[in-house]
Order: sequence, then C-alpha cells, then structure tokens
Amino acid sequence: MSQSHKMWGGRFADKPTDIMQAINVSLPVDRRLWRQDIAGSKAHADMLGRQGIIAAAEAKTIISGLDQIVQEIENGKFPFRDEFEDIHMNIEARLKEIVGDTAGRLHTARSRNDQVATDFRLWVRDACGEIITMITTLQTTLKTLSADHAQSVMPGFTHLQPAQPVTLGRHLQAYDEMLARDASRFADCARRLNESPLGAAALAGTPYPIDRAFTAQQLGFDRPMASTMDAVSARDFANEFLFACAQAGLHLSRLAEEIVIWTTPQFGFMRLADAWSTGSSIMPQKKNPDAAELVRAKTGRLNGNLITLMTVMKALPLTYNKDMQEDKAPVFDSFDTLALCLQATDGMLATATFDTARMRASAEDGYTNATALADWLVMNLNMPFRDAHHVTGRIVKLAESKGSKLHELSLSDMQSIESRINQDVLKVLRN
Amino acid sequence: MSQSHKMWGGRFADKPTDIMQAINVSLPVDRRLWRQDIAGSKAHADMLGRQGIIAAAEAKTIISGLDQIVQEIENGKFPFRDEFEDIHMNIEARLKEIVGDTAGRLHTARSRNDQVATDFRLWVRDACGEIITMITTLQTTLKTLSADHAQSVMPGFTHLQPAQPVTLGRHLQAYDEMLARDASRFADCARRLNESPLGAAALAGTPYPIDRAFTAQQLGFDRPMASTMDAVSARDFANEFLFACAQAGLHLSRLAEEIVIWTTPQFGFMRLADAWSTGSSIMPQKKNPDAAELVRAKTGRLNGNLITLMTVMKALPLTYNKDMQEDKAPVFDSFDTLALCLQATDGMLATATFDTARMRASAEDGYTNATALADWLVMNLNMPFRDAHHVTGRIVKLAESKGSKLHELSLSDMQSIESRINQDVLKVLRN
Amino acid sequence: MSQSHKMWGGRFADKPTDIMQAINVSLPVDRRLWRQDIAGSKAHADMLGRQGIIAAAEAKTIISGLDQIVQEIENGKFPFRDEFEDIHMNIEARLKEIVGDTAGRLHTARSRNDQVATDFRLWVRDACGEIITMITTLQTTLKTLSADHAQSVMPGFTHLQPAQPVTLGRHLQAYDEMLARDASRFADCARRLNESPLGAAALAGTPYPIDRAFTAQQLGFDRPMASTMDAVSARDFANEFLFACAQAGLHLSRLAEEIVIWTTPQFGFMRLADAWSTGSSIMPQKKNPDAAELVRAKTGRLNGNLITLMTVMKALPLTYNKDMQEDKAPVFDSFDTLALCLQATDGMLATATFDTARMRASAEDGYTNATALADWLVMNLNMPFRDAHHVTGRIVKLAESKGSKLHELSLSDMQSIESRINQDVLKVLRN
Amino acid sequence: MSQSHKMWGGRFADKPTDIMQAINVSLPVDRRLWRQDIAGSKAHADMLGRQGIIAAAEAKTIISGLDQIVQEIENGKFPFRDEFEDIHMNIEARLKEIVGDTAGRLHTARSRNDQVATDFRLWVRDACGEIITMITTLQTTLKTLSADHAQSVMPGFTHLQPAQPVTLGRHLQAYDEMLARDASRFADCARRLNESPLGAAALAGTPYPIDRAFTAQQLGFDRPMASTMDAVSARDFANEFLFACAQAGLHLSRLAEEIVIWTTPQFGFMRLADAWSTGSSIMPQKKNPDAAELVRAKTGRLNGNLITLMTVMKALPLTYNKDMQEDKAPVFDSFDTLALCLQATDGMLATATFDTARMRASAEDGYTNATALADWLVMNLNMPFRDAHHVTGRIVKLAESKGSKLHELSLSDMQSIESRINQDVLKVLRN
Repeated sequence: MSQSHKMWGGRFADKPTDIMQAINVSLPVDRRLWRQDIAGSKAHADMLGRQGIIAAAEAKTIISGLDQIVQEIENGKFPFRDEFEDIHMNIEARLKEIVGDTAGRLHTARSRNDQVATDFRLWVRDACGEIITMITTLQTTLKTLSADHAQSVMPGFTHLQPAQPVTLGRHLQAYDEMLARDASRFADCARRLNESPLGAAALAGTPYPIDRAFTAQQLGFDRPMASTMDAVSARDFANEFLFACAQAGLHLSRLAEEIVIWTTPQFGFMRLADAWSTGSSIMPQKKNPDAAELVRAKTGRLNGNLITLMTVMKALPLTYNKDMQEDKAPVFDSFDTLALCLQATDGMLATATFDTARMRASAEDGYTNATALADWLVMNLNMPFRDAHHVTGRIVKLAESKGSKLHELSLSDMQSIESRINQDVLKVLRN
Repeated sequence: MSQSHKMWGGRFADKPTDIMQAINVSLPVDRRLWRQDIAGSKAHADMLGRQGIIAAAEAKTIISGLDQIVQEIENGKFPFRDEFEDIHMNIEARLKEIVGDTAGRLHTARSRNDQVATDFRLWVRDACGEIITMITTLQTTLKTLSADHAQSVMPGFTHLQPAQPVTLGRHLQAYDEMLARDASRFADCARRLNESPLGAAALAGTPYPIDRAFTAQQLGFDRPMASTMDAVSARDFANEFLFACAQAGLHLSRLAEEIVIWTTPQFGFMRLADAWSTGSSIMPQKKNPDAAELVRAKTGRLNGNLITLMTVMKALPLTYNKDMQEDKAPVFDSFDTLALCLQATDGMLATATFDTARMRASAEDGYTNATALADWLVMNLNMPFRDAHHVTGRIVKLAESKGSKLHELSLSDMQSIESRINQDVLKVLRN
Repeated sequence: MSQSHKMWGGRFADKPTDIMQAINVSLPVDRRLWRQDIAGSKAHADMLGRQGIIAAAEAKTIISGLDQIVQEIENGKFPFRDEFEDIHMNIEARLKEIVGDTAGRLHTARSRNDQVATDFRLWVRDACGEIITMITTLQTTLKTLSADHAQSVMPGFTHLQPAQPVTLGRHLQAYDEMLARDASRFADCARRLNESPLGAAALAGTPYPIDRAFTAQQLGFDRPMASTMDAVSARDFANEFLFACAQAGLHLSRLAEEIVIWTTPQFGFMRLADAWSTGSSIMPQKKNPDAAELVRAKTGRLNGNLITLMTVMKALPLTYNKDMQEDKAPVFDSFDTLALCLQATDGMLATATFDTARMRASAEDGYTNATALADWLVMNLNMPFRDAHHVTGRIVKLAESKGSKLHELSLSDMQSIESRINQDVLKVLRN
Repeated sequence: MSQSHKMWGGRFADKPTDIMQAINVSLPVDRRLWRQDIAGSKAHADMLGRQGIIAAAEAKTIISGLDQIVQEIENGKFPFRDEFEDIHMNIEARLKEIVGDTAGRLHTARSRNDQVATDFRLWVRDACGEIITMITTLQTTLKTLSADHAQSVMPGFTHLQPAQPVTLGRHLQAYDEMLARDASRFADCARRLNESPLGAAALAGTPYPIDRAFTAQQLGFDRPMASTMDAVSARDFANEFLFACAQAGLHLSRLAEEIVIWTTPQFGFMRLADAWSTGSSIMPQKKNPDAAELVRAKTGRLNGNLITLMTVMKALPLTYNKDMQEDKAPVFDSFDTLALCLQATDGMLATATFDTARMRASAEDGYTNATALADWLVMNLNMPFRDAHHVTGRIVKLAESKGSKLHELSLSDMQSIESRINQDVLKVLRN
C-alpha cells in the first residue's frame, strides 16, 4: 500500500531517495479514484459514528469535510500535492487542514489495504457500467444501419474471398451480436466483483465493533467479502475487466480491418466522413482511414494491459504485496482505450456512406451462384452432395477457362460435364 | 476450413506439397472433437430426416453408421488416417466405407464452417463442466483443511513480512473464495456460448427447410445463434475460456508459490508427501517441491495460450478465415494444463502435513502485536490513530534497538515515549 | 531437473501418483534433445578419461555405448520408455543395458542441471543455424522475384490507400531487408549463448579435477560460462530465441496479409498456385489462400510461446527451479512453427503468378500523380511546400467532384484554383 | 502519420470531432522526440542547402530557427500546443512563427513518414546507450559487493531448497553475468537499427537530388537504409528494444524476488536501508521491501509493452499505417520503467546490509554436505555414482529419522547401510 513518508516517519531514519520516490509514487495514476475514495470514507465514517466507535459529531465533521473536498476537486480547486504520494494521502492531508485532528479518526478500524481494494472495486464497477452504455450506443447505430441496409446486397466473405451473397444489414448484425456478448461480460464482471472488502483492514479484520454489512450496503455492494485475506489480496476482478476490454477491442479490430479494406479504391464499398479520416502531407488525394487503423491498433494496447497485470499477479503470496500497486495503470488505460475505440467506431459508422451499387456488383461478380448450382444438382438430379460439388467445380473451371460467368455458359457446355443438366438450371443461375 | 484434397480435387491441377500438407493438417489436434462431431452429425441427420430433406431411411442409416464409429473409436479400432487431414474428413470417409454413398447426404444443408463451430462450442461447454468439477474437488479439500486448521495460528503476511496473526484455516479459506469465483467464470463462459451455430452453413444459412431449433435442442443448446455470420466467425467463447483458465491458473500459482516458500527449511511450515516431491541426482537430502514449482510455471503456458488466440483473432475480417484453425490447440492445451494443475494442487494439499508449532512460533515472533498496541493507544488514551501509529513505531524502534520483544520492554521504557501509557497495556502485549 | 523415480528411490517411501507422473514427465518434449545430450555426454566422458577421473577404458566403453545409442535412435530401434521420464534417463538406462555398471561413471562430476543447460544451448544454437538457412532460401526467392519484377509497376500503399507508384520488385525487396535483420538476430542469439555450462554441476561446480575448457571446445562453445550459478539458472538465450522467432514470424505475417489481400478478386494482383491454396466444400469456385492465412495466424503462436517462457521465468530465485522444465516446449514449437512458415512462404511466392497488367492499372488509377503536381508547383511556381500541398488538395477535390482524373481537368479548371498554373503542368500529370 | 487539421484542411469539409482528436493526438507521447526531431531537421535543411534544393540562406535561416527552438524547449519556454497534434507540427508551427514562410521549405523532399522513422530510430539508439550506462553502474555495484562478500558463505539454492554451500559473492556474480548479456542485447539493438530512413519520403523516395549519405552521416547512422519502403514500414527495432527491456527486467525480477525472500525474518539474510523500504499504516513494526516488490512487478509492464507492439504490428501491410503511431508509448514506458528498476536495484543493493552470520548458519543447516558424502563414496569405495547416490539417500533418511545431522551419525549407523564406510568419511562430513 502506498504510504507517505510522513505517515511512518516515526521509525525511519532516512528520507526515501528520489528514485524510491519515483518508483513508489502513485498519485498521477490513482488520483482518478478520488470519487470512490471519498464515497468509501464517508460510508466508513458514517458507520464508525453509528457504531459509537467515534463520536457522532466527529463522524459528521469528517463527512462534511469530505463533502467539501468533493466540491474542491469538482471545481478544480483541490491542491493535489506530489509530496503526498497517493490520492489517499492527499485527501487525508487536506481533510486534516479542513477539520483538524478529527481527521485522524477516519483511519480507525480501517487500513490502506481494504480502503484501496474498496475504491478500486467501486471504480471498476462504475467503469463496467459506462462501457456497457457505450456499447449499447454503438449497438443502436449498428441496428439502425442494419435496418437501413437490410436489402443492400454485398458479397459475404470467407478467407476474404467472396463466397455467397449477403446483405450489409446481415453483416453488421453480426457485430451487434458480438457486442451484446461483450456487454454481458462486463455485466458479469461487475456482478462478480460486487462484494465489499471494507472491514478487512490490513488483512485480518479489526477488533473494533464495525458493521461491514452497513458499509457494504451504503456503497451498493451485495455483501461483505467472506474472507478478509481474500479481500485485500484479490485482483482477479481487475484481470477480468482487462480481458473483457481486450475481447471487446478485438471485436472492434475486426470491424476496423473491414473498414480499412472496404475504403480502399479496389473495394470501394464504403466512404468515411471527412471528420473520421485524415489527409497526407505529401499525397493530397489520400483519404486515410486513420481512426479505423487506430482502433485496430489499440487491440495491442488492450492485450498488453491484460498481460501486464496477469504477469504482475503471477505467484504472489498472500496477502497484499506492493506489486499490486501496478494494478491501476493498465485498468485505467484499458478503460480509456476501449471507450475511445467504441466512440470512434460509432462515429465512423454513423457518418459513413456505403456504395451499395458497388457492393451489389461485387456480389454478382465471380461465381457466387456456384452454391446455388450445387444445390440445384442435389435437389433436381438427386445427386449426393459430394458429387454435385465435384460437378459444380468442373463447370466453374470451364467457365473460368472461357472467361465467362456461369449463366453465360451454354446448356451444352454444362451438359458436356453432366448430361442430365437441363434448362431449368438457368433460373437458378440468373438470380 | 480444413478440407481433404480429394474433396475439391475436381478443380485443382496440382497436389498440395508436403509443406502445405504440414501447415494445413489438423488431425493431430482436432481428433479430440470426435465425440462432439458425431453428436452434431447425428442431430443434423435426424433433423434432415424429420424435415424430409433426406429420406428417413437415409437418416437412420447415417445415424447407425455414426454409432458404429463411436464404438470403433471407443474401442481403439477406428482407422485414423493422416491423408484425411482433419477429424471431420476421417469420420466422413469412414462413414462412407460403412454406409456407402448415403454418407454423402449428411453434408446436405451443412458446411464445414457451422459444423466445426458447433463441435468446438460443445467441446468447450463440456470442458467448462469438467473444470468446475475439478475446482469443486479442490475446494472440498481446502474446506476440510480449513476446518482442521481453524485454530492453527500462523503469521498473516503482507509484503511477505509477518503482519498480524491469522490461522491456517483463514489463509486457505481465501483460496476457497478465489476458486469459487474461478468456477463461476467457467459457468458464465458455458452459459454465454450455449447457442447453436448449426444451420449457418458456410456463412449465410441454407435454402433447405432446416429446423435449427430442433438441432439446437438436441445438442443441449439454449437456442440457435441469431446471426449466421456471427455463428461461423465468433471465437470469443474460446478466448473467454482461455482467460478463465489463465486466471484460475494464476490463483493456483499464488498457492504454489506459498508451498515453495513454506516448505523451505527457513519457513518450515509445511511438508509435502514423498509422492508430491522429488529428489536430486547429486543432493540426496533434497526434497524438492517439484509439483508446486510446475503448477507455478504452468501459468506461463496459460498466459501464452491466451495471447496466442487473442493475437490470431486480431483484425480478422468476417466470416471464417483459415487463421481460425489455430483456435483449438491453445484451448486443448489450457484445459489439459489447468486440469493437471488443479489435480496436482489437490494431491499436494491433501497429503501435506503442517508444522503447526512452527507456524505458531513464527506468528509470535517479531512485533505482530504492534497493531494491538496502537489500537490500545487509540481506545484508552483517545489518541488519533495517526498519532498512536507514530508512538507505536517509536516504541518498536526502541525494542528493536534493545533486541527485545514489545512485552519485554519495561513500562518506563514505553513511558519515555508516551508518558500516559500505563500497565494495562501489558495485557494487550502478552497475547 | 527431471529425475526418474528409480534414481532417488532410496529415500522416498511412496510412488509418485499418476498425476505427479503426468505433470512431471518431459520425455514427449525433451526427446528431441537426444543428439545434443549424447554429444554432451561423449565430450564429458572423454574429458573424465583424459583427466583420469575415470579409467580411460571406462571412457572408451561409455563413448562406444553412446555411439551405439545414436545408431539405434537414427534407425528407429531405440526403446523410448515412458517410465524413464525424460530423455536423459532413457539414454542412461539404455547405456546401462549396453555397457553395464560402467554407465554409472558417466554421471561423475556432472549434474542434471548443467547437463540439461548444455543440451539445450546446443539445440538452440543448431536451431539458429537451421533458421538462418531457411531465411536465406526465402531471401533468394525474393531476390529472384525482385529482379524479375524490377519494372512491374504497382501502387505503393500507405494506410492501404494507393499513394505513389512503386514496382513489385521494390516492394519485395523490403521483405528481403526485413529478413536480413531477422537472420542477424538469430546469429546474435547463437553467438551470445555460445558458452558452455558443463562443469557447473548442480550449481556450484565440482571437486573433481575437470577440464571445462576441453568440453567447451569439443562442443564448439567459445568458452565455459564464467559463473556456475548463472550457468544452470539462465534461460535468457531461450527467450531471445523465442523473440527472434516471433519477430521473424511478424514480418511473415505482414507479407501473408498482403497475399490475402492481393489474391482477392477486388485487388487481383496475385494468383496462388493450386498447391498453395484450397477449395471449399460448398463453394467450389473459391480458391482460398489457406497457407497465407495460416502463416498470418502462426504469429499468434509465436507471441504466445514468447509470453509463456517470459512468464515462467519471472521472479524465479537462483539457481535451478523445476519451473524451468517448461522452457523446451515453447522453444521447440516456435522453431517448428517458424520453419513451417518460412517454407510455406517460400513455396507460395515461388509458385505464384502476378497480374502485372492489373497492378499497373491499379497504380494509374486514382490520383497517384498528385505528389508530382505538388512538386511541380514548388519547383515551377516557387511555392512553399505547404501551400503547394493545399492547392493540390483543392484541385483533387475539384477533380473528384467532376468524376475526372487530374489530367482530364482543363487548364482553366486548375487556374480557377491557382492562376499561375500553366500548360507545362500537363506534362507532369500525363505520366 | 499524425497531421494537423490545418495541414490537409484544403480538402476536408468537416472538422475532426473531439473523439477523432482524442484518438489521433500524439503530442503528449511524442513530445519526447523533440531533440531527435530537430537534429533530423537540421541535417535535412543543411543537406537541402548543400544540394541547392533550397537556397543556402534559407537553410541557414531554418537551422538558426531550429536552434532557437532547442533553446526554448530547454528553457521551458516553448509553447506546446495541443491543437498541433504532434511534436512535428508543434515545431513546424513555431518555426514558421520564428522564420516566416521559409519554414515551409523544410518539408521539401521529406515526408512525415521518413521523418518520424528517423526521429524514432535516433531516440531508441540513444536510449540503448543510456540503458547500457545504467546497467554498467549496477554491475559495478554488484562487482564491489561480490568482492566484499567473496568469503561470505551462504546456501546455494535449487528449488529454493538449500543445496550446496556457495558465497554471496558467487551468487551476485551470476547477476553480473546476466546483466552483461542484457547490455550486449542493447548494443546489438543499437547497432542493427543504425541505418537512416531519411530520404525515403512517404515510401518511394523523392525526385529531388538529395544526398542520403550526407544526412545519414550527420546523424551518426552507418548508412542509408537500402529500401525506402522498408525504411518507413519497419518497427522491428522497437520490438527488439522492448524485448531487451523485458529480458533485463526479468533478470531484475529474479533478484527482486530474492530480496523479498531474504528480508523476511524467516530467512533474515539481508536488511534494506530505511530509504529503500516503507512502513505500514497499521503495523508499525513492518519494514516492507516495497522497492523490490515494485521492481518485481514492473516485469509485468515490460512484458505488456512488448506484447502491445508485437500485436500492433501483426499483419500490417506495407508501408506506413496509422497503427504504427502506437509504437512510441510502449517504448517510452519500457525505457522509463527499466531505468527506474535498474536505479532502484542499484540503490537497494548499495545500501543494504547482509547478515553473514545468519547466512553461514543457514548454509550449515540441513544436509548440505550430502553431496560431499556421495563424492567420498565414489572416490574412496569406487562406487558407481548412482549407487553412491542411493546409499547417501538412505543415510540421510536415517539421520532425519533420528533428528540428527549427518556428522552426528555414528559410524555403525552408516555401516548398517554400507558396510565399507570407514572413519575417513568423518573428515568430509565435518566441513
């Protein structure tokens, strides 16, 4: 746990050196926890007062001091100070300035270990909610586009080769489905982590007559965590969040790749709005899909953050280890990264235009009706599927060698390969 | 999708080279899908017959041929052949040998793409169930040990430094809690993936009048997947499984690290059974915690497998790409690895002995009652916590300089630092 | 270090259980070390004899027994036995069968720890050499193609948008350069690891009067490792090899991606030989770039293997830990994977055909001469580059709005944007 | 490449939205490239003047303007402005303010693509040098400590079990060796990357008569890069740097783990200076090895950064893609992280104290002389090693059952296991 030098100064003879300060300081990262930290402290102070562990007036004083700090931070007037190395010490130090020695009562029956675990769970829980909202927004855009393009025929690809005709609506619906699962992973994460570490103290609980159920309920947790040692040791919730982010980012990287490909002149399916593409200093005609490329790239960062914390937590003995201070940077970064990617993807899609004529032409090119031919052979000539497939392959090869489409072959061409083919087949080929 | 040369031989002039064969073959990996593949094929054949897409007699013939193959595989008599490059072609080829040309009907209204997605989801779903069972077994062992050692005092550690006294029971309970969350992640994974891809065909569905609800229900899926393109493209379920494995393995690595540390002569808390440790070729007195070290190491493999598939799936356009053939090796390996780790951990714990006297002595060493002293100062002298902490720190420093325990200090020693301390404090220090 | 039960059986009461056997066994992985293991043992036996630590006749007997084992393995007649859990025990046990008790002398002044480290370094050194050879082969193919296509104009891309004209020769040359650096990384790896661990014994050396310089020289090492503790602890050479593999694979994944894109009908730059592509069961017209997709995918495996061992080695105290048994599986797998990718890429390229007419047409499409226009403005109108860029951008926009190429604009069109433009510009635009 | 809106504003109708700005902006990251960027620009301007591409006076003006910018940045007076989204635009915009329109000439015959590649290579080259210096400093500390503790006996560990006696000097020497290899990896990285991308322009070079050899030489590069397309596409040098950082960090994590273990009261080998440890808010007696824990943890970040860029670069087609803007954040972060870890490790070691008496006692405990016994059996009774090992194992087991050390066993005890043992053995056992 991060402590200021002042706090444990009674025993230590030397000042931490600059390097130690540099490796130890967490304020630039953990200041984002301020709202959760103050919420946790208010709930704790309230409980201490109710339980008579501190005087009711003290609790009230502390809570009102904390409320003032909320105001100060929201108004940009809070004096963040590096010499108090983390957000917790910054808030405590300020509280003491505001309410005097009573501030010291707040740390009764609480340790930095359970405090930080509480703050972080609250933050991740909130983050899950925010991500779900952003996913839902993107899903709405996808649903709207899907409906608009329910009839916009395009090639369905496998191996990036045109395979069978689909519509843009169906294509985008696939992403809507993926995102629904992504959102459900965040919901699972938020649900699973929603137990309160508060009251675990350093690791073993506290002799004070605290009410863990009360603070849990005040903070919207489902219940106190059953094991105090687990409470201060566990970071699987953070890993789970990082995985959910990485997986959602992976889905977005697939769509981003398609945008990059679809906006090439060779494909020409899609055109990004000017706001979502950029130019080049030396090639003014270029309209580059920068936002899509960046969304695609960000999956690297999301994978990296996941590996960061998975590596940090490897083989750490119970309970709290300082290593765990490295938990927040990847989580905050993955949240920011995914949020940006979700919004950028939404912005790109919402403002893009699709060249539906080009898409339809592309779908009609090639031999995308080959499957229909094979199906016709099965259904009308009662061929086993494998044989129908073989015959279709030979007919395609013949068409290729003539440079013609399937429906441009003569009946006798086809009959040279399978004599039972009759002219009913033409209805299927001219779709 | 993996296909044999025979199948699309109609169109291709050259034989695949050996290298192509080597990079393309998947049989050594995917043969583990045989049971799921046959289950899926039986459900599909049954449906085709019921819908009149193939004759009822054909369906019956196919199903009975597939049943025979199950027998052959279970009895070790099935002729696995490398020239059919995957498990699906092996089964199809054998089916044709058994039932003749009717075998070809099985591929009606189905593609390798939806077939493989179905097989793999079934496999992962089953794997989740098996892992949950193994986790539960380990939890039972932990609960038993926790109960047995509810009174076995040991040091609770933070930063691997003794902090406050706990019991071995409480320590192990923390792992029970972690594992409960691990199990719940597998349950979530199994629930989320439990939709049927069958009927998606290559990517766009099929013109045949299939009944996707029927096959879904036959295979224990909750429903057919809503998007056929998503059905053949999605592998997030595999990533989620890989993450759940990696996170569970991470928890085991923490316990494994503790076993390694606790079994050193310096700690001496724990002794592994001979069956769970090994000797050395040159140092016969050594009793090495090999199983614990291997469990700790395996988290590397689990992280690696996760990164493997997360990297494979990055930026893949819809729908199926051959890249996705790389999905199964990491999943199978993570399952095997985690299964082994869970069983080895269970075996080690169930047969280990704990030196409870040594653990208690270790807990009493140092200044683990310092927190109690600080609490006494707060409660009896009404000191703010921060001040009490400061005073306690100075008293500990004094004790250290005298080479004595806290309770061995004289009252006047303590009063030299805080004059209000009285002899009531001794009750707290001599716990 | 992997030991057989027999070896330390004197002290242990119980048999290792099946699970322990399963987690502990390494034979299926480390049998690939057989050649290096025997080479190391021969050098060691030779040295023991020369130093008089064992009798010269004993050394001769051992060496001739080892030579027989080489024959047996090469002829497929060696009895690999799972009950001897690793390759080392298998060879020792067989040696004893061949030469009797003298076999036991071989382990004098050596431990499994230095033996395995030696074997593994030899293996990785050899693997570097083999990879370099395969890279060189692929470079030769690239150089040939580059020379053949020195005049084959194609679009040079940035952001996958056509930017400026290049040639296929120049494009492929870029990969030749990347591969040269990849090869140099393997050479650095082989050079840096080329020190002999032999003689470090378990960790602290040995009291016997061994000659480490002799064995080092016999095995082609530059020198004995300076620190015996480092000798048995270090696996950075394996990590470096894994990184070199992953980076080379990454370069191949870029080329593979281009092959996938270039073989789409929309791009149509390239056509793979039948031997290097596969068909589809339901879409017979498809010609899928499976080998390219698999090469692209394998970068996942290579990244995964790197993370595996980087995770395994994290925070391991000196010296040998059983965790390190997990070092070989990822190294072997990365070697196999990269070797396959290099050969498959070579095969694909060597047999592919390029549609140079299509490539040239694609290069001429769009506004790839915009840069030339901007340069003309700078050189002829003495415009600052930024202004020239701005003017060019506006002209492109005008052309786009008219649906025309730049050189199809009238002079007055262009003069409406920049009045000083004169008809000399047309020479530049009609390139 | 990052461009400001202003630059390509001629063509784009809409302003980039805030989200696009947020995902696109790179100034907060790439401002660290300022010194390299200006050095590159000065060399380029100088060359343009010498070649007569711009007037000599213009070159002089530009260079002097750039020199002024260096002053401004060094003095903290440079107006960094977010609206110019990257460091390059910030410097260009400021240059225009200082020297007027002549500033625009600087971009002649150069693109952002080759400019950024040049800047980044210069930065990584410099970073390698700085890391090597820091490694050397730490090696010096290790060498000093090794010399000081050349006689400080401690247990050598395998499997974290005491194995054979070593000295602290030998133990620390192992890290000196590891670090030497780490340094050589950075040297290799710096050497391999030391080619100049400048002159590649966007990807295809430039029609201006530039002198690439001159700029290469001015910037300390060995030569211009051979392929202009490779020049703007390659980021393997950054991956190699990230790997070198991760591997060095991995070595430090091993030492950090040992510090954590050695500073436990159970081991008690080492004591950190107050400046390099921290206290606890609730347990004042605690002296936590926070710096060691943080160094151990940082390997997560280093692994994560490596995976980040390896993932970003996967399957990117040539040449430049916007994805590659994600290259600098992980590189800068790994540099900062490793620099901090090297310095913190140096600080911890230089100020730590070792309890050599405790270490020696720990070495003498257990049966560390078992190897000596086995060697005695081989050398004096001419036993095969395996047999000697077996006999020693049984003697150890006997000693354990009696709760005695080996040298406390009676001769007859030992003879009950191997009758030929005589009292000469005692000299070996009482070391």
